[in-house]
Order: sequence, then C-alpha cells, then structure tokens
Amino acid sequence: MKIIVDGMGGDNAPSEIVKGVVDAVNDFNIEVILVGKEDIIEKELTKCKYPEDKIEILNATDVITNEDDPSLAIRRKRDSSMVVGLKALNEGLGDGFISAGSTGALLAGGLFIVKRIEGIERAALTTIYPTGKGVSLLVDAGANVDCKPEYLKQFAVMGSIYMENVMDRNNPKVGLVNIGAEESKGNQLTKETFNLLKKSDINFIGNIEGREIPSGNADVIVADGFVGNIVLKLTEGMAISIFDLLKSAFYENTKSKIGALLLKPQLKNINKMMDYREYGGAPLLGTKMPIVKAHGSSDALAIRNGIKQLMDFAEKDIIKIIEENMSLKN
Amino acid sequence: MKIIVDGMGGDNAPSEIVKGVVDAVNDFNIEVILVGKEDIIEKELTKCKYPEDKIEILNATDVITNEDDPSLAIRRKRDSSMVVGLKALNEGLGDGFISAGSTGALLAGGLFIVKRIEGIERAALTTIYPTGKGVSLLVDAGANVDCKPEYLKQFAVMGSIYMENVMDRNNPKVGLVNIGAEESKGNQLTKETFNLLKKSDINFIGNIEGREIPSGNADVIVADGFVGNIVLKLTEGMAISIFDLLKSAFYENTKSKIGALLLKPQLKNINKMMDYREYGGAPLLGTKMPIVKAHGSSDALAIRNGIKQLMDFAEKDIIKIIEENMSLKN
Repeated sequence: MKIIVDGMGGDNAPSEIVKGVVDAVNDFNIEVILVGKEDIIEKELTKCKYPEDKIEILNATDVITNEDDPSLAIRRKRDSSMVVGLKALNEGLGDGFISAGSTGALLAGGLFIVKRIEGIERAALTTIYPTGKGVSLLVDAGANVDCKPEYLKQFAVMGSIYMENVMDRNNPKVGLVNIGAEESKGNQLTKETFNLLKKSDINFIGNIEGREIPSGNADVIVADGFVGNIVLKLTEGMAISIFDLLKSAFYENTKSKIGALLLKPQLKNINKMMDYREYGGAPLLGTKMPIVKAHGSSDALAIRNGIKQLMDFAEKDIIKIIEENMSLKN
Repeated sequence: MKIIVDGMGGDNAPSEIVKGVVDAVNDFNIEVILVGKEDIIEKELTKCKYPEDKIEILNATDVITNEDDPSLAIRRKRDSSMVVGLKALNEGLGDGFISAGSTGALLAGGLFIVKRIEGIERAALTTIYPTGKGVSLLVDAGANVDCKPEYLKQFAVMGSIYMENVMDRNNPKVGLVNIGAEESKGNQLTKETFNLLKKSDINFIGNIEGREIPSGNADVIVADGFVGNIVLKLTEGMAISIFDLLKSAFYENTKSKIGALLLKPQLKNINKMMDYREYGGAPLLGTKMPIVKAHGSSDALAIRNGIKQLMDFAEKDIIKIIEENMSLKN
C-alpha cells in the first residue's frame, strides 16, 4: 500500500503533515509519497525517526492556498503539491491521495485530473459527523449546491457503500434531510428524491428533520451540498457557542471553578467526542481513485488518522463496488 | 387593546393557555377574546382571579390538530377555534391573534382568512433565535420551501422592520444564510438574493455561514423556508444532544455529581437562555393583521410573553410600516 500525501496543504503544513506521515509509516507499515517543496520537506523529515525507504519526496514548487480560485488554481498552478500529487495518483503511483489543503481545489482537482467514476453524475464531499451514537456520514457536505434528485440518490448509494465497507456499519440506515418526517413534506428536490430512494435497494429510513440529525439515527445523512454545508457548519457553530457559554459560566466564581474542576475528566471526554482529529478525514465520493480531505487545521494526529482512513478506503475496494453498483443500474 | 387567543391550540390547552391569558390580563391591563369550547374554557376560568369584564369567550366547538392537513382543516373545520379566531381578527374584533396550535394551519389560515399585505408575495414564519448576543429573528422558519430571490428580499425587509420597531434593535443587521462569506458563493437562489439585498436600503451585512448563525452577528437571519427550518430544528437538536451528553457525564460518579451541584446556578442560567418560553412567540410576517405563533408546548408563561409580543406587534403598527414600504417600492 502506497499513499500520496499533500505535504503543503493546511494550516499546519508542512511540519504537522510530515509528523503525521512519519507516525502513519511507523504505525501502519505503509509507504508514502510526500509531495511538496523538496528542501523544506527534507528538513522536516530529518527531525523524525522512520524507516527511510518508506517515505519518498515528490518535488512540487508551488502551493494552492484557500485564497486561490479552486478551478483556476488546479488549471494554472501545475507545479503545486496538490496538482502534482493528484497527477501521481492518476498515473497509478499510489493507492490514494490525502490533502489538508483547499477543499474546493481538491474537489476540482479530483474531477479534472482523476475524474469521475463512469455513471456518477456528481462527486460529493462528505464529512464524518459525530453523533450521540458514534459517527454518521454526511453527503454532500458542500460540493454541489444546486442538485437534481438523481445526484442525491447517487450520494445515498455511495455513502451507504462507504459506511458499510469502510466503517463496518451493517446495512447502514440512510436518512434524507428534510423539514418533516412525512413523505409529502419538503421542497421539490426532497420530494422527488424521497421517491427515488424509496424505490432503491439501500436501507432508506425516510426523512430526518434537523432536530434528529445529531441523534445518530441515520448512518448516512443525505442532503444537497448547500443544505449539507449549513448542517455541518451550524453543528460546529452550536458546539462552539455552547462550550463558550459553559466556559464563561465555569469561571463565574470560586464555587463554579471547583465544580468545573471536579467535572474535568467528563468534559474532556465530551470534547474528545467532538474532536474532528479523532475521525481522520472526509472521503470524496465519486472519483476514480480514493481521495480524502483532511481538516484544514489538521495536526499530526489528524493526518495519521486520515491516512488510516484512506488506507481502508483503498483496501476495501470502495471505488470498484461503486462502479459495479453503477453498471448494475445502467 | 384587545387580543384574540386560540384557547384550544397547543399541547397544554386549554388550562395553560387560560392561565397565561389571565396573567396577561392582570399584568398588561388588556382585554382578551378567548376562543374555544365555551364550557371547558369557562371551567378553567373559574379557577382564576381576574377582572371579569376583561375576558370574553367566543365559542368554537371544533379543534384543528397537528394531524390535520393544514389547508384542508382551515377550509373544512369552520367552527374550529383557529378559524373562528382568525375570522374574528379579520372582522376587526381584536388587534391581533395568537395560537399555540398547528403552525401550518395558522399560516394557511392567515393567508386564506386574513390575507397578505398588498405587494407581499409570500408570508413568512419567523422564529426568535437565541444567540450569544441576545436574540435574532430567523425568517423564513418553514413556510415557503421553494423560494424566489424576491421573496427572500421581502423577508429581509419585513424582518428588519420587525426587529427595529418591536425588538428595539437600532438599524438591524441583516445576514443571508449561505455557504461562504464571499458574494460569489452559494446556490442560484442565494447568489441572486445577495444582489437584490445589496441594492436594497436595509442594513445588509452579507452572507452568514452556518458557523456564524449562533453568534448573533446578524439581527435578522434570512433563509428560504427549507433551510430556515433545518437551521431552527438543528439548533434545537444540537442544544438537546449536548445537554444530554452533559447530563449523563454529570451522573458518572460521586465527584462529577458534586461538580454538577456546584455548577447548578450557572447551568440553570444557560438553560434559561435557551428556553423558548422566555421569548414569547414568533410573528407571522406578511399578513394584513398581527398574528403570533406560540410554541406548541407553551405553558402559561410562554402564552403571557407571547401576548406581550403580539401587543407590541400591534401597537407599533408594523403592518402599516410594511405596507408603506411596499407601496414605496412599487
């Protein structure tokens, strides 16, 4: 197994990326191609201990930032770590690609360079969504803002395949984000999608309302990229604002400070449950090769876990299963 | 000032509704028409102390439930408390109407019986949205699931007028729910709406992402009814699931139980901040007379506060300001 890693993407690149790669190589016995500015990456690597034949550097002199226009950057910054990495993936030099860089550029690059699986109309961004019952997969988390019912159906099928095979969720339950539980509820898009999902052979459990999303009743949460992005960001925003409220409440007086101290292990646990770093990265679904987006503020732990997830993504042959499923439908 | 109250709507009708009405009459020196089954309402009223000439009962033998189809129920259940109450409002018997009953039916009834303000294309449901900085107004919270840019612009204008005049927010900041801060971000609907809002004379602060919604940076949060409903319900769901997590963490062992005990006053405060009952009801915006939707599980306090809000809605002449604003535009 050989994984290609964007060494220059994300807020903490390259040092945390390199550290995460070294941890992954030591822990999982894999090979890695680290893409980025050779001299900088090399300097970071000299600080670490690892089997030297397991990590090779692929030089790329440029970097795509969050300020770049995603599609333009993919076409013009040809020597960026992301473009060079994705091209290496497309040429079969590795089994998967992971980047903590620009989400939009990774998606655009996945589509332009690696391309979509035949029969797949749109590739989707996903997010591992922490819930009261573990994690769910949210598809689409922001790639496709204007969707047709058929796209959402494909998101549901791909998400279902991923959760079943990579996350070991048996017969994953698929829910459609909607404004009511009944079939008749929703806008034009969700009403038509409901009909398609009802007739499909996935385990469709019906509509899930906003209130139900954090409960974890659905293993796969399906929405168009606009709604999915609002769901993702609002969830983060609510967690942040409630914990901010708690924090200032804890510091209110001596009594509350002691109370908070006594609760420290429990609060730490809850924080960990909501920590994106524990869940690795988010798979892109619908491209011809496995691609994982790591969180922009990924540290070494997040990168290490993201690489593990990418390994499963590749090993479990998700792409092939999606391909087979698509050819069955056509 | 005379307020018409649906005595039979909501989970705790009629007893809590009647109690809330009595509190409002005693506290605010207003008159109330209580609509519902005469004998039942009368029986509840005999339990209470109030100036008897201030509350009159308007008999209505039927009730619209959440199981009824909203539009059908409004047309067919002609002797329901909601229809009788809205007709009384339309005939000028009172200055405003409040109900804790079916949201859909109240909206349908508002449109069919009271009708839209001239020039207003769609009436909107709103919600008082608690944030880190007080409250914001979310428009539309679920009435119009497929929207045109012009509808959203009218929601923004009406919400702005309401926040300025009823909630005393000076030059209220209006934000458009979107998936990115930049003007170029979003789906077709939000991109076109951005352009309309930019050219309008409200205090448009641009797009707000999901993460920013709970921060309270915008006084008026504008979205189509599908997205607005997801925002509202997900916010509730996140609050519930985080507090559930905290609760079970607090009970984990003796040490954590003591910690929770020490924090009790602070936790109570946070709970109160998120308590819908403190904020009264949600105004319907766009109908010819003031209508307020109280929460389905409203108790006496929520009804009392909802009536206060409805009084402000009527007293501040919001409908007239909206009408003038619309005639200026045409």
